[in-house]
Amino acid sequence: MTADPVAPRHVLAHLGPHAILTPTIDETLAYFVDLLGMDIVHESDDGYYLRAFGDYERWSLHLIRADRAGLGYASWRMVSPEALDERVQWLEANGYGGHWTEPELGIGRFYEFLDPDGHAFRLYYDTERYVAPEDKRPVIPTNFQSYVGRGANVRHVDHLNLLARDVRACREFWEAGFGLRTYEIIRLPDESEAGAWMSSSIQGHELIYTQEKTSGSGRLHHFAYLVDTREEVLRAAEIFTDARIYIEAGPSRHTAIQGFYLYTREPGGNRIEVANGGYLVFAPDPKPYIWTAAEWAKKPGWGAPIPPEFHIYGTPVVDE
Amino acid sequence: MTADPVAPRHVLAHLGPHAILTPTIDETLAYFVDLLGMDIVHESDDGYYLRAFGDYERWSLHLIRADRAGLGYASWRMVSPEALDERVQWLEANGYGGHWTEPELGIGRFYEFLDPDGHAFRLYYDTERYVAPEDKRPVIPTNFQSYVGRGANVRHVDHLNLLARDVRACREFWEAGFGLRTYEIIRLPDESEAGAWMSSSIQGHELIYTQEKTSGSGRLHHFAYLVDTREEVLRAAEIFTDARIYIEAGPSRHTAIQGFYLYTREPGGNRIEVANGGYLVFAPDPKPYIWTAAEWAKKPGWGAPIPPEFHIYGTPVVDE
Amino acid sequence: MTADPVAPRHVLAHLGPHAILTPTIDETLAYFVDLLGMDIVHESDDGYYLRAFGDYERWSLHLIRADRAGLGYASWRMVSPEALDERVQWLEANGYGGHWTEPELGIGRFYEFLDPDGHAFRLYYDTERYVAPEDKRPVIPTNFQSYVGRGANVRHVDHLNLLARDVRACREFWEAGFGLRTYEIIRLPDESEAGAWMSSSIQGHELIYTQEKTSGSGRLHHFAYLVDTREEVLRAAEIFTDARIYIEAGPSRHTAIQGFYLYTREPGGNRIEVANGGYLVFAPDPKPYIWTAAEWAKKPGWGAPIPPEFHIYGTPVVDE
Amino acid sequence: MTADPVAPRHVLAHLGPHAILTPTIDETLAYFVDLLGMDIVHESDDGYYLRAFGDYERWSLHLIRADRAGLGYASWRMVSPEALDERVQWLEANGYGGHWTEPELGIGRFYEFLDPDGHAFRLYYDTERYVAPEDKRPVIPTNFQSYVGRGANVRHVDHLNLLARDVRACREFWEAGFGLRTYEIIRLPDESEAGAWMSSSIQGHELIYTQEKTSGSGRLHHFAYLVDTREEVLRAAEIFTDARIYIEAGPSRHTAIQGFYLYTREPGGNRIEVANGGYLVFAPDPKPYIWTAAEWAKKPGWGAPIPPEFHIYGTPVVDE
Repeated sequence: MTADPVAPRHVLAHLGPHAILTPTIDETLAYFVDLLGMDIVHESDDGYYLRAFGDYERWSLHLIRADRAGLGYASWRMVSPEALDERVQWLEANGYGGHWTEPELGIGRFYEFLDPDGHAFRLYYDTERYVAPEDKRPVIPTNFQSYVGRGANVRHVDHLNLLARDVRACREFWEAGFGLRTYEIIRLPDESEAGAWMSSSIQGHELIYTQEKTSGSGRLHHFAYLVDTREEVLRAAEIFTDARIYIEAGPSRHTAIQGFYLYTREPGGNRIEVANGGYLVFAPDPKPYIWTAAEWAKKPGWGAPIPPEFHIYGTPVVDE
Repeated sequence: MTADPVAPRHVLAHLGPHAILTPTIDETLAYFVDLLGMDIVHESDDGYYLRAFGDYERWSLHLIRADRAGLGYASWRMVSPEALDERVQWLEANGYGGHWTEPELGIGRFYEFLDPDGHAFRLYYDTERYVAPEDKRPVIPTNFQSYVGRGANVRHVDHLNLLARDVRACREFWEAGFGLRTYEIIRLPDESEAGAWMSSSIQGHELIYTQEKTSGSGRLHHFAYLVDTREEVLRAAEIFTDARIYIEAGPSRHTAIQGFYLYTREPGGNRIEVANGGYLVFAPDPKPYIWTAAEWAKKPGWGAPIPPEFHIYGTPVVDE
Repeated sequence: MTADPVAPRHVLAHLGPHAILTPTIDETLAYFVDLLGMDIVHESDDGYYLRAFGDYERWSLHLIRADRAGLGYASWRMVSPEALDERVQWLEANGYGGHWTEPELGIGRFYEFLDPDGHAFRLYYDTERYVAPEDKRPVIPTNFQSYVGRGANVRHVDHLNLLARDVRACREFWEAGFGLRTYEIIRLPDESEAGAWMSSSIQGHELIYTQEKTSGSGRLHHFAYLVDTREEVLRAAEIFTDARIYIEAGPSRHTAIQGFYLYTREPGGNRIEVANGGYLVFAPDPKPYIWTAAEWAKKPGWGAPIPPEFHIYGTPVVDE
Repeated sequence: MTADPVAPRHVLAHLGPHAILTPTIDETLAYFVDLLGMDIVHESDDGYYLRAFGDYERWSLHLIRADRAGLGYASWRMVSPEALDERVQWLEANGYGGHWTEPELGIGRFYEFLDPDGHAFRLYYDTERYVAPEDKRPVIPTNFQSYVGRGANVRHVDHLNLLARDVRACREFWEAGFGLRTYEIIRLPDESEAGAWMSSSIQGHELIYTQEKTSGSGRLHHFAYLVDTREEVLRAAEIFTDARIYIEAGPSRHTAIQGFYLYTREPGGNRIEVANGGYLVFAPDPKPYIWTAAEWAKKPGWGAPIPPEFHIYGTPVVDE
């Protein structure tokens, strides 16, 4: 990749709206609305636009009717219009050129491109601050809308985990081009990597890549939605249980980043996490912790065993 | 009161269904269903029958349309038909005779009478174990219905606080006639009592009497509904805030019994608590802790100040 | 067993002091004091007497120096001296006669006998209410001592799980002789039982028997200590992890009784649980839920997988 | 202030070590060690250096023996040596020049200067990553030391509140010179400000100024230490209560930033908060919410009343 005259450290502000493909749009919608507690903002020809009560932007999730489950796209809001332009130039100069797409419901325009594993990402700066309608106006004016208190009651998206055939290439792409900081890496004996946890902020993870073990590419491992407390993760387990939603793992605690997790599959097949916690990194000059395969295999610290499918399953589902 | 040949220690099993009067039946219903998370079991000519997800009986709350707010009745389930008959005899022998009422929706028949301050109470034994319809069947068969996860998500009624002009007389009535154990008393210099916390079980409070400071009688101070954690009490505060429900006090912690509380008024005016915790009493021979007025005034331990209205307001509202 | 003219329903008040044998008395003491947060009341020739901050009695745990780990004894406080005498008569009339032992540090005298699987139990009524020394006097006078806030911060013992070669015989022994209520049973195709959860109160479990799968008898599965919240169970996992204490299972949630658990082994080898929650049973006439083996094998509801050793390991450790 | 050619947005990394003056060094030390759960790193001629278990640096608090309570200094770690040099130049060019001080126990050298109200601040970049001794080595290598689990169990400092005669001047100083973002302001009718909540990161508050209502200057309102959950704030209230520490306010929830709080005074008189939560700000272009005095007076949302002394008391204590 070309050397970059401008240090890209502070160019990404936060994860923005994302799109999820589902073959069962009605059931998937019910999962996000009734069980996660999100609200419908708009019904479109191809699906629905949703928001969570902690989103400052107008919407954050586009559910798209499709033949099979998978990632539509992920996105980042940039810190400024200049940062957006510069990063687009960098992408185009480095063989990752994409295209601009029109604004959608107050957010965008977007520049869409593919990461090294073929996942679609969008960059944007322009957005619209959500103004709640009268019946959802919050009492405290620094909130964006009234508290939901329905189902798992998710506040906003927390992080994103993608599968990649070359985790290291993906990590280096985001570090070099966008200044993401990497907090943990699993390094295998052949110097390839089994996982990388990256963030644009003090939060321990925003974007994770873990090893793709099938012939697929561009696959989604999971989106994680934040709840305010570990207690709400435990409550979510009750809610999913009685709603007959498949719980793949948790509630328990991860070793990497130390977040508290609960993994389900929404009815369309995409893995969705309800998450709380994970450490914060305050140091301005952190070094990633590099796990050897042997050390990682021991999984120090408490936490339930993770089922083998957790390391294989992704969407779209592929023959191995 | 007449001496009782049979020790009445284990005659009350638990608080049963209660009725609340409200002048705003629609808004009150919405409060209990949308904000507390209860379900409608039946609509009747005079109002609604509701249940909470942790009730093993078919229903637990009767909302009754009325001119003004107040207590309809409270009730106790007896441990056996024999205990019911014996206690009715005791009531009738001691000047508290009432009358039998017909079964309602699977619970009863009831014997209804008035306590020394004029609050209606019902005793019953016959009841119907709730069988959830297909869409509310719980996954774990020891649960009574599926988890609700809506609003404050109350599990069942926890305790009941009545105002009484003669707290001591009320306390002695329940001790002598029904074997309630008293865990805490506030005793004033004139030997009258400002409060008494009583229970039929190891839980620190089921029935509380506190001093009536107006000319009223038979008034309700509050019903408390249990949530599973203190975190859920804090969540409830968010829910009530944005629903524009008046919060009178809390979330905070009481000195007596040490429960964590949040007091609101349902739209009809009745005070409703969302509660968690309070100590358990395992000793088979406990002595009540007797607070002097001076000691009580200091309110040892942490906890927010209680507003003066908490000690005056009850339903029905009366001129002082 | 002989028919009993007096219904034994309310004869046991609560689990009382217990004794645990350990081959590593110093390390075991450090586990209970530094990690669980208990206090030493007395050092004796054979070990130590400890208390938890929520105990109303003077002490609740006797750690005894021994060749190998295991149960010293469990105990029950009786509701009255009369109940104690009657139940001793019943034991002696039914072939379970034992002997009286002297008071220890303000509790007892005790009647000690063996349950059908050979576990030592003690019954007693006389006890001494703990009076905290000046430096542990609580601010709220209804507490027994000041709050500890050290390590896992256990409040008191919650329940006891014993292994038994004939679970059914043990269950029937306690039901017939002491009126324990059974809330859940796992029934095998041959009518034998793999587990029984019993209680003297509204709490879902005080005494559990599960199947002994080795040639041993009289073995301890675990003692469980209560913490106030699920959050404290999660905190305890951090504490045990960094103290290099073996965590066998959890934190997670059980299907039976639905308590939140964390299982460790104290350094002497006895399994100790840190527990919170579990349902309450208010009905005066509950029927046990009877799991078939097939239904139990599915383990409905959320919760981490239990490792196989959980069903085998007990103390003393025996060759299978 | 001079216009600044380099945008100072990302120059402060996080709050660093601070010093607190106390006239009761032994009791203050016991407060921080036994009740907050901090560890002593070093005893010096003038007092003690302490750390919390979540600090990545070697120490974070210097307790200094003094005639009266108050702030020694607060500090910021800079993102780079260059940022440190540039900001020192800016200070000197704008009349806030100070002096360099020698490194202390692995941190520094420091540049010390006074903010517009006369509070001492230090800037530094050089630091030493803490290496735990053998007996405090954590099991998970991304932790800095083993989990403490003692007392309130604070993880690290969360934010700092200073009193200022001219809040607005202080706010503008940090915005112009150091790029702090301001998330909330209370603006009075005369355009002066009663409070300003600022941060260098997505966390809602790191540095707060509120109105000095006495003749004092350079006074400390409080330091806040983070605990992991609201439950731990509630536990801390138990701990402080039985330790006879004065609780000024809470546990409850603030309207500004919405953090959960508990305010005590350490024995030397400085106000210390145990805190959890508060919103995060992800937008790269946030506008501060500006409260009018009238709107602020209503304090929308739940939360206990704050006592009047909260708005007056600071250290050092001054005659009004």
